Amino acid sequence: MTETRSINLAVIAGDGIGPEIVSQAERVLDRVAELDGFSIEKTPYSLGAAHWLETGETLSEETLAALAQHDAILFGAVGADPRSAEVPSGLIEREVLLKLRFAFDHFINLRPSRLFPGAVSPLSNPGDIDFVVVREGTEGPYAGNGGVLRKGTPAEIATEVSLNTAHGIERLVRYAFELANSRQRKKLTLVHKTNVLVNAGQLYSRYFNEIAAEYPEVETDYCHIDAATIYLTTDPSRFDVIVTDNLFGDILTDQAGAVTGGIGYAACGNINASREFPSMFEPVHGSAPDIAGQNVANPTATILAAAMLLRHLGREDSAARIERAVEKDLAAHPGATRSTDQVASDILE
Amino acid sequence: MTETRSINLAVIAGDGIGPEIVSQAERVLDRVAELDGFSIEKTPYSLGAAHWLETGETLSEETLAALAQHDAILFGAVGADPRSAEVPSGLIEREVLLKLRFAFDHFINLRPSRLFPGAVSPLSNPGDIDFVVVREGTEGPYAGNGGVLRKGTPAEIATEVSLNTAHGIERLVRYAFELANSRQRKKLTLVHKTNVLVNAGQLYSRYFNEIAAEYPEVETDYCHIDAATIYLTTDPSRFDVIVTDNLFGDILTDQAGAVTGGIGYAACGNINASREFPSMFEPVHGSAPDIAGQNVANPTATILAAAMLLRHLGREDSAARIERAVEKDLAAHPGATRSTDQVASDILE
Ligand SMILES: CC(C)[C@H](C(=O)O)[C@@H](O)C(=O)O
Ligand SMILES: CC(C)[C@H](C(=O)O)[C@@H](O)C(=O)O
Repeated sequence: MTETRSINLAVIAGDGIGPEIVSQAERVLDRVAELDGFSIEKTPYSLGAAHWLETGETLSEETLAALAQHDAILFGAVGADPRSAEVPSGLIEREVLLKLRFAFDHFINLRPSRLFPGAVSPLSNPGDIDFVVVREGTEGPYAGNGGVLRKGTPAEIATEVSLNTAHGIERLVRYAFELANSRQRKKLTLVHKTNVLVNAGQLYSRYFNEIAAEYPEVETDYCHIDAATIYLTTDPSRFDVIVTDNLFGDILTDQAGAVTGGIGYAACGNINASREFPSMFEPVHGSAPDIAGQNVANPTATILAAAMLLRHLGREDSAARIERAVEKDLAAHPGATRSTDQVASDILE
Repeated sequence: MTETRSINLAVIAGDGIGPEIVSQAERVLDRVAELDGFSIEKTPYSLGAAHWLETGETLSEETLAALAQHDAILFGAVGADPRSAEVPSGLIEREVLLKLRFAFDHFINLRPSRLFPGAVSPLSNPGDIDFVVVREGTEGPYAGNGGVLRKGTPAEIATEVSLNTAHGIERLVRYAFELANSRQRKKLTLVHKTNVLVNAGQLYSRYFNEIAAEYPEVETDYCHIDAATIYLTTDPSRFDVIVTDNLFGDILTDQAGAVTGGIGYAACGNINASREFPSMFEPVHGSAPDIAGQNVANPTATILAAAMLLRHLGREDSAARIERAVEKDLAAHPGATRSTDQVASDILE
């Protein structure tokens, strides 16, 4: 991908701590653009719980069409609002965040996990943690399939259907092999629950084994999701790249955030790797209503998401510049509690 | 439940380390029976990978009918065999272990997690961990539902259907409230993914909220499965009783095993709480083919499973006696590596 002189960026700050962390990431983006000689044109979009409470609208077709025109989307967090008792649980997450992932075919949900120098892991022996989870983003149990019969009665049944397609899994697994092959350790682990979820499990295994033959230099292994949570506790540095389904990836990356010192450092790329739609970059954490508006939220994950965004748009040098600055900042302030804007200022230095 | 003078026990030692750990648990059971003045009649059943390789049979209707006559089942582990390349992946787990859970309607999968004195947690600040997971055992994504279309082609789709019933969830949640109410902290946490798996999530939430009203002394809260893995890493002592679905319970209890110093201490009761069928007690860990037959497997989880078995049969004193002995043994040998039979001998002392 060639570098663009100007980036046409959509910004969805969202609810809760969203606006404060996103504005710090914007400061960092602006500074890097200045240093590296390109420009960023930003268009804010008002979406989330507050927007829904005010307009009754979650995400309209018009907004989707407008968002589709951008090079990429920077996303804060949605869901929380002081009036959130009025917001049906999960509605905003599904109708905004998941809808964007599905509408823009973000089939790669990319989540790096690193124990940064200066970050404090709750494990006594964390080792050198540096892996990436390649989570499926557009199918599995997130498909919104399933239903309810005899609702509210003692005879109710409720189903959830996990949909898994060769189409979705092949492109996912291929991306993961490509990524593993580009890394120093060249190791790829498939995480699933093939002994119980046999249908989906066999489809994952089939593509995993088939594509492995095309990447003889990539070392492969498999572990069940339950065993993976054990390894993440006892030996997280055994992982290099993990490929897994939508739900298992959700679970593993929150745990990975915790073992690397908190999800305050975990960034996520919702990537349409075929580049038909804009990709979207966000922190893994949520809108944290309890600390919103107090200038205490850690903007690091969002700043790292901004770096992923630049990398996706071909600006590897600018991305690396941000990551180096974050690393230096964390090493210089180990375990420190700082204000939201102070962290960004320190990173900018 | 009144005490029985004689226990009619079925013993399924299974594969891998199964036989060696089960025989140590039998030694402990025999000794406790002698001390507490009751008898145990044991009937061994040959089931597992080795049995399948030799007979082509996983679990016949005749064997099921015979097992149904026992007061309880002590189960080791199945799946591993030196010839296991010949065993289709997951076949034995599904056709023996899961089949028993479903056939005997083991709707409560009870998994206590404790950081025993002397056990070494990989967390630097584990706190005082002592919680119980009440995992659903007979439905959810384990129902074996779902299927495959256009198998082996680039147009394949594979589904997994999670089946959730009011029948299954009400009895589960009721059991969990009863258990929480009987404990000192009286706290119950529902773990699910209600923001994404809305159909099943609402059914769980409905019974959780309804039954909560009957237990005003039980403090309740909710957390998503992804957040639960964070809490298990950063603050596991926040949990007292957790109630959750079959798959989430599988994942959480392996992670819980790891944070409490290894699944060598984690026991599991597959309980038919309505007592229509025998309940089954097993270690959470598997058949560990890599260390089988070397007298190095830790029998503690199986011995604790035997204690749960006695408690289920009304022998609370004998169960507590075993648990006290295990505690003392662990405290006396912190972090020690001992042979399988030595651990049991030490516990017997
Ligand atoms: C908010 C929720 C729908 C979302 C998910 O489950 O994917 C979040 O947990 C995440 O990991 O991005
Ligand atoms: C062996 C497997 C089918 C089983 C499960 O998934 O329930 C195991 O992991 C367990 O936790 O008992």
